[in-house]
Amino acid sequence: MRFELTDAFLSNLREAISSQNGAFVTEQLKELYPPDIAGIFNQLEIEEAKYVYKLLDEQTAADVLVELEDDVRERFLASLTSKEIAEQFIDNMDSDDAANVIAELPDNVQDEVLSHIEDSEQASDIVDLLKYDDNTAGGLMRKEFVRVHLHSKALECVREIREQAHDLEEVFAIYVVDDDEKLIGLLPLKKLIVSPVRSIVADIYDPKIISVKANTPAENVANIMDKYNLVAVPVVNAIGQLVGVITIDDVVDFRREEDTEDVQKMAGVEAFDEPYMSLSIVEILKKRAGWLVILFLGETLTASAMGFFENEIAKMVILALFVPLIISSGGNTGSQASTLVIRAMALGEITVRSWFTIIKREIKVGLVLGLILGIIGFLRVFIWSNFTTIYGPHSMEIALVVGFSLVAVVLWGNIVGSLFPLILKRFGFDPAVASAPFVATLVDVTGLIIYFSFSIIFLNGL
Amino acid sequence: MRFELTDAFLSNLREAISSQNGAFVTEQLKELYPPDIAGIFNQLEIEEAKYVYKLLDEQTAADVLVELEDDVRERFLASLTSKEIAEQFIDNMDSDDAANVIAELPDNVQDEVLSHIEDSEQASDIVDLLKYDDNTAGGLMRKEFVRVHLHSKALECVREIREQAHDLEEVFAIYVVDDDEKLIGLLPLKKLIVSPVRSIVADIYDPKIISVKANTPAENVANIMDKYNLVAVPVVNAIGQLVGVITIDDVVDFRREEDTEDVQKMAGVEAFDEPYMSLSIVEILKKRAGWLVILFLGETLTASAMGFFENEIAKMVILALFVPLIISSGGNTGSQASTLVIRAMALGEITVRSWFTIIKREIKVGLVLGLILGIIGFLRVFIWSNFTTIYGPHSMEIALVVGFSLVAVVLWGNIVGSLFPLILKRFGFDPAVASAPFVATLVDVTGLIIYFSFSIIFLNGL
Repeated sequence: MRFELTDAFLSNLREAISSQNGAFVTEQLKELYPPDIAGIFNQLEIEEAKYVYKLLDEQTAADVLVELEDDVRERFLASLTSKEIAEQFIDNMDSDDAANVIAELPDNVQDEVLSHIEDSEQASDIVDLLKYDDNTAGGLMRKEFVRVHLHSKALECVREIREQAHDLEEVFAIYVVDDDEKLIGLLPLKKLIVSPVRSIVADIYDPKIISVKANTPAENVANIMDKYNLVAVPVVNAIGQLVGVITIDDVVDFRREEDTEDVQKMAGVEAFDEPYMSLSIVEILKKRAGWLVILFLGETLTASAMGFFENEIAKMVILALFVPLIISSGGNTGSQASTLVIRAMALGEITVRSWFTIIKREIKVGLVLGLILGIIGFLRVFIWSNFTTIYGPHSMEIALVVGFSLVAVVLWGNIVGSLFPLILKRFGFDPAVASAPFVATLVDVTGLIIYFSFSIIFLNGL
Repeated sequence: MRFELTDAFLSNLREAISSQNGAFVTEQLKELYPPDIAGIFNQLEIEEAKYVYKLLDEQTAADVLVELEDDVRERFLASLTSKEIAEQFIDNMDSDDAANVIAELPDNVQDEVLSHIEDSEQASDIVDLLKYDDNTAGGLMRKEFVRVHLHSKALECVREIREQAHDLEEVFAIYVVDDDEKLIGLLPLKKLIVSPVRSIVADIYDPKIISVKANTPAENVANIMDKYNLVAVPVVNAIGQLVGVITIDDVVDFRREEDTEDVQKMAGVEAFDEPYMSLSIVEILKKRAGWLVILFLGETLTASAMGFFENEIAKMVILALFVPLIISSGGNTGSQASTLVIRAMALGEITVRSWFTIIKREIKVGLVLGLILGIIGFLRVFIWSNFTTIYGPHSMEIALVVGFSLVAVVLWGNIVGSLFPLILKRFGFDPAVASAPFVATLVDVTGLIIYFSFSIIFLNGL
């Protein structure tokens, strides 16, 4: 029932394509769903894909196109004329998918494709959708929905569904508007089905309805749909008129991409817009090398910071041995804090406004974590010094330096890690840039200074 | 239209509760949705919440209970009798929510509650659902769905909806079964509405249907619903009979929790099951201290590793200065690699089977990244040495040690980072445990050994 693309399937198919065996290809694809066929297209050469798409019915071909990976779709569309794109694909798509596909085309091609769309309502819907920012409700919505007036009869709703929803795969609800086209409620399909055909919408509709504005950020739309368990949410303009509907599948896709980007940024990688396996090695390098170099340059400051304390190290080499331990503890604590804060912000659990509460908490947490690691570190050095001569005569002082440094560095790492994403967000940057490696680099340099300062305090004159 | 809980609202409400002003409380809550009321409950004392819930209608009270935070619900239910829980809440819930709530109760209370459920069908549905593992399709599904036989008439479908779906908020589709109750297709509600009432289901249903088995892992269910853009997916037993339906809202919740857990684990934090702000400082410490201590103990090996090279450091203090730079570069590269691999596995983009392809890629990527950082590192030391005397007479050799070490450590970090999550997954562990800090710690210790080995090779006898 569910399809898994195998090498054998693919090579049989390619053989049939090269020998122009259309009947075999059609037979192979007959039972598959558009996302499966798109998975096959992603593996084919453009000329092969062009041969296959001509064997598909227009609706399936359009559905497949929507599901293709971005770069495959781009290359495929580049091999078609504007007229082919418009008539064979765009006309068979929901307005939101059509707008997304057109937005990816080069500017001059966009206008040509739009001029070839046969359905003028579809064309004007697409032009309207192209105005909205991708990251807003307007950028996620479609223009296809079923809308009835408050004074309609149930029977008219059925007619509206026939007319307005002829190309809608799924209808979740019928939206009810007043005489000014303002959204005032909804009528679930189930309610319509079980109501007498002579009922008036006004008597059976539900006036309690959650909607979003066209300029509501997509992130908020996702949080609202999550919170209220919605599968579809209507979008209204500034004066409350119904202008579109967002369905959960689009929001799930959006959220998934956002989450993936966040995770990648949090590891110091530029966001990928394609699956890991589809990226070439050069593309991967581009996404990774930039941040690595920035982090590396930041980290060269550790050499400078340590250079500053060269004399202390020369006098007591043992001090150098604890450098990785001290700075990584600060870095690990900072990574924990920044990740928790970034994720809680992404989920809408906290906002920048509560920064003071967050910092107060994280100072307490950091202090306790620092004390735990500080005590372990102190004991590690103190106990070990009984079994080795490596610490020289000042093992107690060294144990104190390590212990106190850990408390301070861990506390500091926790403050930096939790505060930094909040600061980024406050000034309009993406908090996920406060990645674990970025926070660790910040804390490494300052951690060294803290550590060697303690060593001067405790070991001065010894 | 959308509600935001303010301190003023809350204090007015609490005042009304304490003065038993039921009319005011009812008025305040009238326009709110269950998730909003749950948000208020989360802030109230148990006695206050009990006063408020008695003012709600039973359906709303049940919906609110489902939306409460886990620990609030636990405390709230502990204050009620089994009979109250069964009759006032469980009877008004969908079977999946009811099973989840009951599963959280203490064992002895579970049986008591089940025995008090009035609707015997609901009780047996819940008992059935309690058998399934939380992380499978069976654990996500509900038993409420609309099912018709292939030979039914459209009119009978409407009757079925009335009967089977009286307590279903939303109906996404009608599932079509054969005489053996085996799932053979579906009938979209829209299709039913626009078909003549005398139509036979067999003539209007869609035989192409995607279903999952009751033991399909929840992760796979989420990936299937994503791939095929489904808002609901039917669940069948081993012989293909329809046993339940999973709706997208449950999958979205599941995915969200999984993603949050993954992100937290990837930062070396034990997974939180509650929002950041709801956790006490003690709870946060519990989630964070364990991993920090483990990482700390691992990192103490760096001191041992460096102790091994104490003589080299004593002879040439300058070597110690580059330690943080070298090991952090390996750690950062490893974090990038492990995060990319963990995320791609979570999204179903890669599986353990393709480990060899992944490693081949990541060796190439690691080598290039290493060369980039190695060259920058070499130049940094080489050029800098013209402006300072800190490097002594052997600046060229030191530059070579730094450069070669960076190539090797970055390559090594990349291999460890990409291979480690795959190995964990292969042996049945959660790959997200291969967190950035964990990989960094692994790479730190080995990175030091690589670095000092190069220094012995290049600087031996100088």
